[in-house]
Amino acid sequence: MTVVTAFAPATVSNLACGFDVLGFPLESAGDVVTARIVASGVRIDDIEGDEGRLPRDARRNTAGVAVQALLDRLGEPRGIALCICKGLPLSSGLGGSAASAVAAVVAADAALGAGSTLEQLILCALDGERIGAGSAHADNVAPCLYGGLVLVRRPNPPDIIRLPVPPGLTAVVVHPALEIETSRARALLGETVPLADAVRQWANLGAFVDGLHRGDFAQMARALEDAIAEPRRASLVPGLSAIKRAAAEAGALGCSLSGSGPSLFALCASRAVALAVERAMLAAVATQIGGASRSYVSPLSARGAHLIESASHAREAGAGRLPE
Amino acid sequence: MTVVTAFAPATVSNLACGFDVLGFPLESAGDVVTARIVASGVRIDDIEGDEGRLPRDARRNTAGVAVQALLDRLGEPRGIALCICKGLPLSSGLGGSAASAVAAVVAADAALGAGSTLEQLILCALDGERIGAGSAHADNVAPCLYGGLVLVRRPNPPDIIRLPVPPGLTAVVVHPALEIETSRARALLGETVPLADAVRQWANLGAFVDGLHRGDFAQMARALEDAIAEPRRASLVPGLSAIKRAAAEAGALGCSLSGSGPSLFALCASRAVALAVERAMLAAVATQIGGASRSYVSPLSARGAHLIESASHAREAGAGRLPE
Repeated sequence: MTVVTAFAPATVSNLACGFDVLGFPLESAGDVVTARIVASGVRIDDIEGDEGRLPRDARRNTAGVAVQALLDRLGEPRGIALCICKGLPLSSGLGGSAASAVAAVVAADAALGAGSTLEQLILCALDGERIGAGSAHADNVAPCLYGGLVLVRRPNPPDIIRLPVPPGLTAVVVHPALEIETSRARALLGETVPLADAVRQWANLGAFVDGLHRGDFAQMARALEDAIAEPRRASLVPGLSAIKRAAAEAGALGCSLSGSGPSLFALCASRAVALAVERAMLAAVATQIGGASRSYVSPLSARGAHLIESASHAREAGAGRLPE
Repeated sequence: MTVVTAFAPATVSNLACGFDVLGFPLESAGDVVTARIVASGVRIDDIEGDEGRLPRDARRNTAGVAVQALLDRLGEPRGIALCICKGLPLSSGLGGSAASAVAAVVAADAALGAGSTLEQLILCALDGERIGAGSAHADNVAPCLYGGLVLVRRPNPPDIIRLPVPPGLTAVVVHPALEIETSRARALLGETVPLADAVRQWANLGAFVDGLHRGDFAQMARALEDAIAEPRRASLVPGLSAIKRAAAEAGALGCSLSGSGPSLFALCASRAVALAVERAMLAAVATQIGGASRSYVSPLSARGAHLIESASHAREAGAGRLPE
């Protein structure tokens, strides 16, 4: 029997001009999943930290579906039992379903000794996220798995690009006391967008990528504008413009919704600025929304999902036996 | 009286994933405009190379409108007479109206000794191009004026970014014996686009800009895909897919319409590859379209519009006199 535990970080995605294609992990917040080999099938043994709200049926659980995809891909006759510890609030816009799916496939792959590539694991995790989020764009799953500031040129087959992160660049994330279902936020977007808005978006994304390479914070700030999703989702977060203004006045390069919200991220040129921006955003959120907010100040972490402990035992004699 | 002549290069714009925002000049093809100070107003004294088809009325001529915008901006009481020598075929997709507008404002500004900045000149040229092309996106005017591979983050106020050009990168342009009106090509696009196509476009543009910075030709090749304009305009160029295939088989990184066509551009990793691609594209165009094609092989020229000769004379005494 082999038991392996993996951590997968929270991720900021839909990075303003990088809607559906840009994301990065936070340093410490995330989900922890333990995978244990069982005779066959996928099951969820336990979920902590979800207040009983996530499906225990593996076929409807993001981590369960992801691991089933891995078993199918490997042609693996054995099964996996999962224990999921949610370190992220549900429907927060911080890639919680991606983190569960990624931690589960990383742990399960290690438990099985399969040594799958990141390209293989990402496709399995995407299968899982599709269950959780209603669609899968890989801008949470890819940075969660690979680490770093990631551009998803194409989710399948995966064409994942790690962009340079200028020294000092620091993220602030504030999670107000709201919940937004990803599927509801996506429905606000509609199926088409004005061409003029789309052109503005890709002009900004090109400028943002160029600014990253040259460490040009002023250009990055000008480019950190979402012409597509944020205007259509602004109603989901009361006082969004006031919160953005507070971030800007405190020195943020830009501030927008993380994922489909309600979490907001800001990018800052240094940790010192980020700490001031965090205070300003928390104050604005308290005024505009109230309730208890969580906040994080983090570099754009270079580290993706990884094993945090593993107990590997020789399988007992009588291999087909249920290891329960 | 002061007479100044300027050259402004042909430009490739709508660079596949860079629709409306990316462009670069060719090295030698372009328009030449001579500006001469007159007492007041703007007039077109002569146009060569247009077979009599461009408006001689300065208020309807792209160069005339651009120079009027310059005079207005300067609060200049004197006027300008223009002689325009078209080095580019009309409606070719190579930025002919931008070249005339840019050469005219560069020549007129020098004739007047005004010393306007590029940011000021671009806005005047854009006013002119709006007359010629029905809309103005600056992805011809900006590279024509600034030189280099240019990203237009915003046309007004101008936010123009010169992107790095990896050593060896060479353009092929083939202009088949077709004419396409920019306004007709634009009408094919419609006002809205599917969000999924737009996301694919900005993912590609981000990857292309990253590839330029890292000199990663393989990534640039994957990203040189137009999810927006080319599929909607393909019917304007018979056999487009066969021509693109010929370019790819000869080693091009990518091939698409220049501007709104009918010219096609290909980007290649070296001049040697570009020469082979030029042959392959010309052969395919001969088969698919027939007629006489022009072609160019050029680096992504770093040089924008510039003065090529100027005769500066002290103004005669009796300043208000018509210098005719």
